[in-house]
Parts: sequence; C-alpha cells; structure tokens
Amino acid sequence: MGSVAPNVAELDGSKFNITRSTNLRDVPLPGSPEELSHSHCTDHMVTVKWTAANGWETPEVKPYQNLSIPPTASVLHYATECFEGMKVYRGYDGKLRLFRPDCNGERLNSSSQRSSLPGFKYDEVKKLVAKLLQIDGPRWLPNPGSFLYIRPTVIGNGPHLGVQVPKEALLFIIAVPWPDFTKMKKDPEAEPRKGLRLYASSPDTIRAWPGGFGYAKLGANYGPSLQAHGKAQALGFDQILWLFGPDRQVTEAGASNFFIIWHNTEGKLELVTAPLENQLILPGVTRRSVLELVRERLSQNFVGKLAPLEAVERTLTIDDIEKASKEGRIVESFVSGTAYFITPVAMIQNENTDINTLGANGEPAGYAAQIKSWLEAIMFGKEEHDWAYTIDNEEK
Amino acid sequence: MGSVAPNVAELDGSKFNITRSTNLRDVPLPGSPEELSHSHCTDHMVTVKWTAANGWETPEVKPYQNLSIPPTASVLHYATECFEGMKVYRGYDGKLRLFRPDCNGERLNSSSQRSSLPGFKYDEVKKLVAKLLQIDGPRWLPNPGSFLYIRPTVIGNGPHLGVQVPKEALLFIIAVPWPDFTKMKKDPEAEPRKGLRLYASSPDTIRAWPGGFGYAKLGANYGPSLQAHGKAQALGFDQILWLFGPDRQVTEAGASNFFIIWHNTEGKLELVTAPLENQLILPGVTRRSVLELVRERLSQNFVGKLAPLEAVERTLTIDDIEKASKEGRIVESFVSGTAYFITPVAMIQNENTDINTLGANGEPAGYAAQIKSWLEAIMFGKEEHDWAYTIDNEEK
Repeated sequence: MGSVAPNVAELDGSKFNITRSTNLRDVPLPGSPEELSHSHCTDHMVTVKWTAANGWETPEVKPYQNLSIPPTASVLHYATECFEGMKVYRGYDGKLRLFRPDCNGERLNSSSQRSSLPGFKYDEVKKLVAKLLQIDGPRWLPNPGSFLYIRPTVIGNGPHLGVQVPKEALLFIIAVPWPDFTKMKKDPEAEPRKGLRLYASSPDTIRAWPGGFGYAKLGANYGPSLQAHGKAQALGFDQILWLFGPDRQVTEAGASNFFIIWHNTEGKLELVTAPLENQLILPGVTRRSVLELVRERLSQNFVGKLAPLEAVERTLTIDDIEKASKEGRIVESFVSGTAYFITPVAMIQNENTDINTLGANGEPAGYAAQIKSWLEAIMFGKEEHDWAYTIDNEEK
Repeated sequence: MGSVAPNVAELDGSKFNITRSTNLRDVPLPGSPEELSHSHCTDHMVTVKWTAANGWETPEVKPYQNLSIPPTASVLHYATECFEGMKVYRGYDGKLRLFRPDCNGERLNSSSQRSSLPGFKYDEVKKLVAKLLQIDGPRWLPNPGSFLYIRPTVIGNGPHLGVQVPKEALLFIIAVPWPDFTKMKKDPEAEPRKGLRLYASSPDTIRAWPGGFGYAKLGANYGPSLQAHGKAQALGFDQILWLFGPDRQVTEAGASNFFIIWHNTEGKLELVTAPLENQLILPGVTRRSVLELVRERLSQNFVGKLAPLEAVERTLTIDDIEKASKEGRIVESFVSGTAYFITPVAMIQNENTDINTLGANGEPAGYAAQIKSWLEAIMFGKEEHDWAYTIDNEEK
C-alpha cells in the first residue's frame, strides 16, 4: 500500500502550473523575531495533489498560504504525515546548492510509504525544491554564506474519517529563514558554552522500539517526544538524549544523531555512533556524510594535529560513555543533523550524574570543527563535490 | 507542560459564540455512499482556540467548514494531535444521550497533555458536545434507535515550525453519520459471518511499547499502524490483532479491545482481556463498561442460559488462545470499541495457523450479545442508568 499503482500518474517534478504572488512578503532580518519564530516562509510554496484513483497531479507553485483542510482529514487524526529537513545554501560563488538532496528524496519516499501515503521517485523531490528556489532564491537568499531551511512534507488530507489507508494526499514544500545557531552563539549576550548539554531520557519514556518506526521521519516520532524534550529544556538542557533498553543504549539526541570520539577499552581511537540495523534511529543524511568523510579523509592520515581514527557503527550504552569519561578516554562528542548541523556536546546528565563529554583538557579536540568545515566547503561551493546539487536558472 | 498555567483561561463549555449556518447540508440516507464515506458531517462544528499566553478562548459553534491551517503548523509535521471517539444516541423515548462522556473527556485531557497540548477539565467536553447536538440533533438524528459518531479532537495549529511544545492549539468537535455495522451485516448481499476475522501482527511490526504512548489516543498510534491494517484487509481480514513481545502477548485488535471467554486450564469460566498496567493498550470506555457490567451482573448468577463467570484483566498470549481452541475450551471471543461496538470474533490467523475463536459448537455463546443488549438499553434509554448523560434543550 502507499506505492504507486499501475496506470496512475507518477510524480513529475519537471512540469509546473505557476501562480505568482502579487503581494510579496517582508524578508525578515537575520536574528529578528520573525526569523526566530520559524514561521515566516518565503513568497511561494510548492503543492502536489495525489489521489489513489489518478496518482500525482501536476505540481503547482503558488503564493504561500494557509492550507484548507477538512476537519475529518486523516492527517489531523491519524498522523498520516512525514517530512524532510533540508537546507539551500547560497555559495560564495553566488550559486544556490542543495546538499545530497536525493538522500532526502529517498527517505521522504520511504517515510511516506511507511505512513501508508503515496510513493514517488526520489529524484523528483529535488526538482520541486529547485523550482521553488529558482523563484524565491534571489529575493530570500541573496547573501553568500547563508541558507534557508526547506521542509518537504506529505500529508493525508482527504476527508475520510474512517481509520484506513489514505485515498488522498498532498505533498508540499515550503522554505523558511532559519536562525543560524552557530552564529547566534557568538552573540555577546548568549552564555558562552563549549557544547550542548544533553539530558538522558528516563527508563519510563522511550522514543522508538524494534518493530516500530523510529527509522522513518514520521510526525508520529515527534509529538509524543515533546513532553520529554520540554522537560529537558525546562531543566536547562538543550536536547534529550534518547536511551533504549535495559542496557540503556544511546540511540539519538533529540532531532539529531549522536557521535562520540574516544579511545576504546583497547586504546584504539574511534568515532562511534549507533547502528541502523535495529531501525531505532533516524538514518541522518549528515550522519551518513560524517561517517563517509571520516572513512575517506581521516582513517589513514593525520589532518593537521588530528590523529587518524576509525568510524564505527556500533551499539554503545550510557555506561560505556560514563566509564570512558571517568577514565579520561573521551576525545570529543557531537551531534549531527540538518537543523543543528555539527555541534559539540559538552556534557550528558544521566540520572543525576553529570558526564563530561568534552576532551580530557575540557575542550573539543577539533574533529567536529574539521568535519563541519569540510561539509561547509561542499555546501557553499568552496569545494566541488558531487554531494552538492546546484540550482540553476534562478529568476533574477 | 501542556497543563493549564495559572492566570490563563480554563476551558469553559457553558459559554458560546454561535454562528448559524444559512446553507444547510443534505442529511445522507442510511447506507448511502455519503454515509459510507465517513466524511459527511452535520451542519455545525464546535471550535475552541487556545494559546499559551491566554489559555482557552470562548467556544464557538459555527457552520461546518474546512480548517485554515498554516503549512508550518505543528500538527502537520509533528503529530501534535489526539482525539476521542464517541456516539450520540437517539433514545426510544426521543431523548439524545451520550454514553459515559466524562470518560472520554478525561482521556482526551490525558491524551492532550501526553501530546504536549493543553489540558482542561474533563467535564467541559460533554458540554461542548451537548451544545453541538442541541443545534444539529433534531435535523441529523431524528430517528429513535440510531446514532451519530462524535469526534472531539485537539491539534497544535500554531505556525511555529521549530520542534517545540505547541504555543497554540485548537479543540474541535464534529459529528458525522456513521454506518451501523450491525445493521449492514443483515444486508442480504453481505457475506454471512459469525464474527470478525483477525490477523495477528508479525513480530517485525509492533504497535506500542512500554514507555511509549499506546495507552493514549494519539494520532501517532494510528498512521504508522495503517500499513499492517491495510495488509490485513488486503488478505481478507477485518482487523489486525496486535501482539507484543517474545511471548506474543495479545494486546488489542485494531481500533478495539479484545476479550475472550474460556474455561481456563483449571476449568474455571473466565472473561479475559489484556491489563492496563504496562500502558500498551488503549483503556477503552467500552472495555471498562464490559468489565464492570460482567462483574456486576454476571459474576454470581446465571443470566438466562449464560453461566456466571469471572472478569479478569491479565496478560494472555496467542499460544494460550491457540491451545484453548485446540482443547475446545473457548466459549466466545469479541472486540469492543466505540466504532465497532461489541462484535464477536470468529477466528484469528497467526503465522498461517487459523485459530477458531467461536464456541465449541461453532457459534458465539451469547455473552457478547447479552452485554451488547445491556449497553444498548442504557444508550437508547430503555434502562435508566447513570452512565447515560441526557442532552436537553434541543432546538426544535
């Protein structure tokens, strides 16, 4: 179910019906309340309707506007919804780029089918995003070195209230100015921090389970987790660190994947992150890119003062981390994701015990900064790389 | 979080702003395509806005209409949504009744807070429902012995795209004509059946987990389960029967609770259903009512030919059921819920094994029919009972 049946139209990101906005919106200033609200989208949006009977209709570009949704719609009752988080980057060469957009297209297709929503060819998604940015990019993202956040979403918007596989769906894509958390931390009023503070989840609340859907980017993974997230924030932490199982496996941190660099118990330098096999964690695009970059560029040789290390996907527990911290074996830890990018982690609180996850000298060792720098070079076009997808034909 | 902060307005179901529809909708005929679509609501709906800053606004009754929802709204991305299923019954005495509406109000409040949506006093919900039915009841539910389905829902409809506890919410209530599945089975064209056919879930797909949210009526419990539900239906089954854990515990059936009546291994006659303690299953209002009625009316004495039995909430496994079936110890089994009410179960398929769950003579023993009859007497006013809440002051 959810897949494209024969004789219905497939998603085609090469044809559009375009309705231009005649009432352009104000572009918020960086750091303004409008930008911080995460709600002030660009002038246009992309929508594509789907019905079980006819498949995907012609994509539309139209003025950004509220959606008209029946009170009986599946998405409002049964969480038939999934999304992607992407960014579009204005390169130092003036070009717009997406970062590995087919990874997002592939995951959105997978998430959509996991939600019993329709499938599509993964590479159509980047074409839809590109069309939106060809129109809104010049006005909304003029400055090299900056980005917009892109949110492709699929929802079940048909009017049938019965608990059933949706017969109608809507794919929509919006673009929104997003605070640059990296730059915000340089704000003189902000408390200086060496990294995020994570709050380990308690045994009575879990994010995902084997045989569940933690590996898919479904709305259903988020709403029920906000309670724990809100509790962590109220206690002064940045994110929740989700543990799982009686051995308290470290799975992922809030909306990002978790990495630790340590000397393992045999003394070997490793980058460790949770594995994908048991389908508990989201297979992050940034996660995958970190692993690939480390394996390609850091497994054999020193990079500056950074010693080579092995990237390992393996179950690790909070006790492993606490032990490594006590024994002075932790070199650095960080989270990765589209929204928070690559951010060092300073500490984890687990059951009232504070675990220092910075290096032995109280500073990140510099791996996260190096990886971030490599990724930014690709994203902003300093380095030519096939992970970057350039958006041409902007309408100036 | 999600609870009502001091100095913000609480939900008050005694005051309303009312806008009447001037364009009344057609009332669908029983069994018509409009009714079968589960989408043709009554003339009006109730909406109540909530903001973190000010709390609950004055409830509105207004013409049924689509909701205008920002594309960035929390409910579309993070499944900040929960609902209740209720029915309103037109009694044989001409009065409208709700069945234990405070149980639904209490569960909606609990589900809402579990979704980081606002809380409220449980008994306000029935007042909101009553107001809708005072207006729409006379035209939409004129016939004694019939019912409408009522859907109170809470969604996070604020425009903030960041992953955070919602700052805005909407409670809405709609009423929709719903097919009476009991009556439809009497349709001569329908295949005659002695009960539902359930398809036991496979170990690789799990509905809920300890520490999760299976006990709350969140959208997040439904969308991800549609895939398995769709598969079961495609194979010719009515519902999925959700198993859990290495011992394959029987938890609940699709959108309803599961009951079995058997002679246990010690020969004692029991009604068994899964317990609530581990928070895996939904604490159904009908489930609770079945247990209470059986304990009150069937634990000591014969009722007609029905022997007394003990109602037990206890973990049972699919192997227990298969063994009981093979040994001829099953007396009857059924599911309970608002949508499907009380419906006998004829068989369960588990890993290609068909388990007969009717009584030894191939017929339900009659307990489900008796319990259903007691409940209907209360719902339709044949029996005065404090589980029925009468809606007065209908606008004729």
